[in-house]
Amino acid sequence: MVNAIIWKGDRLELIDQRALPFEETFFVCRDVAETAFAIKDMVVRGAPAIGVTAAYGLALALRRDANAQSFSEACEILANARPTAANLFDAIAYMRRGLGNIDGLANPAAEAERLAKAYHQDDLAKNRAMGRHGARYLADARRVLTHCNTGSLATSGWGTALGVIRQMKLDSGLDMVYADETRPFLQGARLTVWECVQDEIPVRLVTDGMGGLLMSEGKVDAVIVGSDRIAANGDVANKIGTFMTALAAKHHGVPFVVAAPTTTIDRNAASGKEIPIERRPPKEVTHVRGQRIVQEGVEVENPAFDVTPAELVTAIVTEEGVFHYPYDFRQS
Amino acid sequence: MVNAIIWKGDRLELIDQRALPFEETFFVCRDVAETAFAIKDMVVRGAPAIGVTAAYGLALALRRDANAQSFSEACEILANARPTAANLFDAIAYMRRGLGNIDGLANPAAEAERLAKAYHQDDLAKNRAMGRHGARYLADARRVLTHCNTGSLATSGWGTALGVIRQMKLDSGLDMVYADETRPFLQGARLTVWECVQDEIPVRLVTDGMGGLLMSEGKVDAVIVGSDRIAANGDVANKIGTFMTALAAKHHGVPFVVAAPTTTIDRNAASGKEIPIERRPPKEVTHVRGQRIVQEGVEVENPAFDVTPAELVTAIVTEEGVFHYPYDFRQS
Repeated sequence: MVNAIIWKGDRLELIDQRALPFEETFFVCRDVAETAFAIKDMVVRGAPAIGVTAAYGLALALRRDANAQSFSEACEILANARPTAANLFDAIAYMRRGLGNIDGLANPAAEAERLAKAYHQDDLAKNRAMGRHGARYLADARRVLTHCNTGSLATSGWGTALGVIRQMKLDSGLDMVYADETRPFLQGARLTVWECVQDEIPVRLVTDGMGGLLMSEGKVDAVIVGSDRIAANGDVANKIGTFMTALAAKHHGVPFVVAAPTTTIDRNAASGKEIPIERRPPKEVTHVRGQRIVQEGVEVENPAFDVTPAELVTAIVTEEGVFHYPYDFRQS
Repeated sequence: MVNAIIWKGDRLELIDQRALPFEETFFVCRDVAETAFAIKDMVVRGAPAIGVTAAYGLALALRRDANAQSFSEACEILANARPTAANLFDAIAYMRRGLGNIDGLANPAAEAERLAKAYHQDDLAKNRAMGRHGARYLADARRVLTHCNTGSLATSGWGTALGVIRQMKLDSGLDMVYADETRPFLQGARLTVWECVQDEIPVRLVTDGMGGLLMSEGKVDAVIVGSDRIAANGDVANKIGTFMTALAAKHHGVPFVVAAPTTTIDRNAASGKEIPIERRPPKEVTHVRGQRIVQEGVEVENPAFDVTPAELVTAIVTEEGVFHYPYDFRQS
């Protein structure tokens, strides 16, 4: 299993997910601007990984300039990097809460580093707990379909949906993981397949439009995905294409399961309507690995996420356990 | 509008759809083997275009060898080129019926040429009629989503679903065509966008997983697609990904309309269960424009079509008019 986020004391090293699986290189962040760029440009992606990266980004900011003013500016820069991932805002709020009155601290940078490391460890622990809950819940499923990448690369090192899949493999074996390629950024083809091969999990690549047919052929026991933000009513924002897969699962009576730490839950969003959907650059759609797939000058839509209504979600697995519709995360 | 299938008396010239829109070259078929290759390798694709091509392929076969034996062999070769498109089998049956006792004909090659040209003209007439019926039915829709390519390239020269869209543009204007890119072969990105731009139809490219979100945002008035084979009960086989789009349309109360000539209806298939689903080479999924998108050695599923159950299909438009669920094409 890969270590995608490595804290080096004076810098943060991120495996560059833009280049995987063809090149394994590291992107180095020495300040908050480089960290925000890494998040925005998807050097690092996946809501939990974005959260952990942002926490370290704030530690870097305080190493450089240990005062409340620069910390606030750093929070602002990171919060603007990407709009949808709840974990980004959770991490910023956590650091702010943990540090308290920065100008009253003896060593703000050291304290921020301690907090960021704790946030990182905590996410890993949540991943492992989620994996156990999810694997127990899906004990009878042997063939699963997943969308996007939710593994070591997307988190602190184990995975949300892919963490559950890893645990299922350890506990009772798995016959097949169908990995949606996940256009436009190809997180499935490039990252999920790469992680599954490393862990010797049987995997088969499919395009995003194939899940419906596979389910109609009886080849999928469960769909399991992660999330970028879950509203208080259980509406789930996740990588574009998730919603259509959830509709196919519902049509076929296949369980549709979301695995996400509680840091992904946005208690302030009453429903999915309040979750901002990021629009990303057209080039992600018009080009594949630098090569054009459509003629020049054509308009594109590139929403990065969609919202799956809670009633299509069979279960939400967090580190606290398995929840079922109707969901109410207002107090939890 | 492009002429994709050009009969030259002694040969058939096909615009090479594998290279569009980046290169406009023609592929020349001088015998039945070259014609079957063109169909199999998707130089020409789209059920009606495959039918017309096959009819000319049989004319080429009889030019070379004007006897019943070689005609039967040619029918066999063409029938094995691709398994799903009903029009392929319709065209072969039409030529067989039209020619009757070949060994009793004075000039079988000339008669085959006449029949193939008539089949070509007939498909065009059906396209135009379908376009009129469909545009009248969808007179209030101004923003449509389509999947795959169903235009001049996929037919004898006007289009099935894209023929309806062309007619809608002529009759009442259109605000937007959302074109699914249509992985893995990218018929939408490469061909539908190209045709729309040529005809000055406003078009925006989206990935196959985006339709659900667009519908939830109220941006789609109707979905309109073609078909490769329609069963007697109205189940619709069409390009992989269609089924999931139909589910999204159903969920949002958006009309899901199929446009296809009656030559696409297979009265012998009671339901979609009897329609063979072609599995195509893995390389279509693992590579985009010759470039690998996944590491080597990974397994792939590549079903070329899926089946949309009749109950999800709001209307089927043929040259004869507009039909509604429940469908019964056994006698028609």
